[in-house]
Amino acid sequence: MSVVGIDLGGTGLRAGLVAPNGSVTSLRSFEHGGLRRPVDAIDAVVRSVEAVSAGQRVDAIGVGVAAWVEKGTGFIARAPNLGWIDVPFGELLERRLGVPVVVHNDLKAIAWGEYRFGAGVGADTLLVVFLGTGVGSAIIAGGTLWTGARGFGGEIGHVKSGPSEGPLCGCGRRGCLEAYVGGGALARRAYEIRARGGLEALPEARFPEVTAQDLEHAARSGDPDARALLEQGGDLLGRSLGAVINVLNPDVLLLGGGVWFASEYVQDAVREGIDYASHPDLRKSVRIVESALGSTAGVAGAADLARRKITSV
Amino acid sequence: MSVVGIDLGGTGLRAGLVAPNGSVTSLRSFEHGGLRRPVDAIDAVVRSVEAVSAGQRVDAIGVGVAAWVEKGTGFIARAPNLGWIDVPFGELLERRLGVPVVVHNDLKAIAWGEYRFGAGVGADTLLVVFLGTGVGSAIIAGGTLWTGARGFGGEIGHVKSGPSEGPLCGCGRRGCLEAYVGGGALARRAYEIRARGGLEALPEARFPEVTAQDLEHAARSGDPDARALLEQGGDLLGRSLGAVINVLNPDVLLLGGGVWFASEYVQDAVREGIDYASHPDLRKSVRIVESALGSTAGVAGAADLARRKITSV
Repeated sequence: MSVVGIDLGGTGLRAGLVAPNGSVTSLRSFEHGGLRRPVDAIDAVVRSVEAVSAGQRVDAIGVGVAAWVEKGTGFIARAPNLGWIDVPFGELLERRLGVPVVVHNDLKAIAWGEYRFGAGVGADTLLVVFLGTGVGSAIIAGGTLWTGARGFGGEIGHVKSGPSEGPLCGCGRRGCLEAYVGGGALARRAYEIRARGGLEALPEARFPEVTAQDLEHAARSGDPDARALLEQGGDLLGRSLGAVINVLNPDVLLLGGGVWFASEYVQDAVREGIDYASHPDLRKSVRIVESALGSTAGVAGAADLARRKITSV
Repeated sequence: MSVVGIDLGGTGLRAGLVAPNGSVTSLRSFEHGGLRRPVDAIDAVVRSVEAVSAGQRVDAIGVGVAAWVEKGTGFIARAPNLGWIDVPFGELLERRLGVPVVVHNDLKAIAWGEYRFGAGVGADTLLVVFLGTGVGSAIIAGGTLWTGARGFGGEIGHVKSGPSEGPLCGCGRRGCLEAYVGGGALARRAYEIRARGGLEALPEARFPEVTAQDLEHAARSGDPDARALLEQGGDLLGRSLGAVINVLNPDVLLLGGGVWFASEYVQDAVREGIDYASHPDLRKSVRIVESALGSTAGVAGAADLARRKITSV
């Protein structure tokens, strides 16, 4: 059986053929630069499937999308980073492609990929948190992907944990965790700090697209603003994760994403925040691991979820 | 089939015969004043079962205990309020009673009771939080009681959300939610505030066993210290619940316990804390309800969990 997995993020698309053991071949990846019209996204997915399958028959397609996906239906209630509201994405894709299509939130697909083929293998209760442009989470317990009541959980990035006058988030509120520790927010905040004369260690050429790696380098060279920026976000995220660990008792916490891997200051602050907020015995029973599949986790996970769905019918 | 349910808390024990529809008869309830030796707790349970069953045959016994109960085994890893460590409670009880015994954490039994027979009926993803002497939580999703990796989740009361120099908690740390909004902590903090000359509206006779109801009355009569005490705890708890709601997407949040029902200031602050910290769309999709079964929820839930276990074998 031939299954294609697709990871459709806010700025890029990845697609590949995924074997039952999770190995990804014919990987295609491109920056789409924003697909504001769902019809353009459907075209992009169709072209990717054609490119990846190279004329071979495809039996099912799994898609992970940076969106609020209603459980079981593939209906997208909102996709803030794509600018969509109320799009029956799964249904539209099935009509165009003529094969079963299974749509999940991107973090859920990533988490499933890591659980089945990566650093989450063998976990009983797995909590996955990715710090990329945005910040998201997903849970797998007893071999089942957590959906919650409607499928919209995982929004740890939009926990408002700072003061009410905190930094502006992409969601329109202030003080969300993502506004402290997401890659986009770090760049914006770095720019603001520079405008006030701070972040002296960062060369002018790095602005305005400052990365977490830029900030990490500056912090290591002794820049106090860079260090404070990274540590504050990591600390707030860690404290929220401590609360979630207390409530859920996971045995594995899996962390990944560009910001996570770029910054040891963030990593240390996240760990310290968890130590601060969680119960020591619950803290001890959770092993912290890092994403093993990297950028193909979503492709592998989406495809595997599709394969399971069509073979269980 | 005749099933007995027991709710064994840090200071009291409740027992009753529970029908398949959740109705509780022959209810017995007494204050045990602390059962520091597990053998005394076993004696108390055995006597309760005898009193409740009145010579009739008993087919199974369900027990909810204020303890960290290992999932599936009835092994108690720790029971801070009883002072126990590493007690094979389920096994010891089965040996004494000669019938199947199913042991769960008390909050899990309460949550199950409300889910099956109370205000949680029909919920897809139910988050239950009780503010009593302590503060605990439990989750039921898709008809299944959440256990986490070992069975030790639900410790929202020991999320350290205050500053590191916050009030001392029964667990030995400072700044846990339970140290702000648990009934025991409210009494202790009220006493300390009085010692510094505050809480003038509260009559001397109410000390040192100040209740949440005392504080509510004082706050309504205009005492700023009483109001601040209730609101601070409610706000911190609400913010942590907002994070959990963002991650889990429950459709029902069920609140109960003595402190919850005693204080509108706590209730309002909890609601405002949730509104502050959670994503507006996830907040909108959760209905907040109050415990319907009150003090028999744990008895009904523990018995039903035992009935399910023996009938599913």
